[in-house]
Amino acid sequence: MIKEFRIRTTKSREVVDITNRVSECIKGVKEGICMVYVPHATAGLIINEFEPNIASDFVAFFEKLVPKAGWKHNVIDDNAEAHLKSGLVGPHALMPVSEGRLVLGTWQRIILCDFDGPRDRRVVVMVR
Amino acid sequence: MIKEFRIRTTKSREVVDITNRVSECIKGVKEGICMVYVPHATAGLIINEFEPNIASDFVAFFEKLVPKAGWKHNVIDDNAEAHLKSGLVGPHALMPVSEGRLVLGTWQRIILCDFDGPRDRRVVVMVR
Amino acid sequence: MIKEFRIRTTKSREVVDITNRVSECIKGVKEGICMVYVPHATAGLIINEFEPNIASDFVAFFEKLVPKAGWKHNVIDDNAEAHLKSGLVGPHALMPVSEGRLVLGTWQRIILCDFDGPRDRRVVVMVR
Repeated sequence: MIKEFRIRTTKSREVVDITNRVSECIKGVKEGICMVYVPHATAGLIINEFEPNIASDFVAFFEKLVPKAGWKHNVIDDNAEAHLKSGLVGPHALMPVSEGRLVLGTWQRIILCDFDGPRDRRVVVMVR
Repeated sequence: MIKEFRIRTTKSREVVDITNRVSECIKGVKEGICMVYVPHATAGLIINEFEPNIASDFVAFFEKLVPKAGWKHNVIDDNAEAHLKSGLVGPHALMPVSEGRLVLGTWQRIILCDFDGPRDRRVVVMVR
Repeated sequence: MIKEFRIRTTKSREVVDITNRVSECIKGVKEGICMVYVPHATAGLIINEFEPNIASDFVAFFEKLVPKAGWKHNVIDDNAEAHLKSGLVGPHALMPVSEGRLVLGTWQRIILCDFDGPRDRRVVVMVR
């Protein structure tokens, strides 16, 4: 099974809880490995808690982790920092599907990280 | 195939080699993608060497990477740092199963990272 | 399907675009989850843009992220830094295969990171 949906981000750096959208995609699937995937080089996916404070902390954390200036790619396009974050975080998040549901812990949500928004972002969901 | 086991961690920050437990789970499986998964938002999984020195280095490295203080989530629950580490590391580790065995290099072990222990941690193993 | 190829790196720290090699491996596969995997504890895989400037930025970024000195593992083998980078980045990169092709965005390439070269590196490709 492969499905796709789109998310419109609204800020230059934003984290968006996409768990419900992924859950809709896997309806009718009983068991398998679910891969959520963004075909983008300045976005990424993480799995973690999502409430406004920790969401804001994740954005701040990635800002601290990757300095804005001093990158060679910035002479081509001024978004090296977004590529470095995306490379580190990765474009995929995986979890089991069991008994027709995503296996997620109490505090786990699937979170799209846009490091270079606002943009339209594609999210691909595949279960095998 | 989906199986589950539990690990009791004993420290606030701890890395545990769970390779043998995962190997037991995949007995009888000939070939596939093996996903090891922890349904937790303050733990994670890595694949790397495991001996006491590098184990201790990994704990120290994550401490350096994520400052303890200054996070908004800490007004709710004083473990933002553990969430940020978990989000970065991720709750899954994957490797091939081939000829009935996990495909791991000489120095690769599957390592559970508890960033907010001691706790009982669930580990889910799925092969497809 | 499981296949393997080798890459000879030429520098102590190097990033190599292996997308075309992976594409060759998946010929004849129509749909599935593709896992690219390196059975090594001082290398890793990322998915991101690949042009000379950002390639050099990734090498510099990992150097900044992980200090060279101060690790206990260095009394055994002077490459703790390479293990820490490899543990953080991870040995796997995944993407969908759909209609016989790797689902990669315009700027996404599959990149092998050697943190302790030059070496011969094995790359395993499995689709399920």
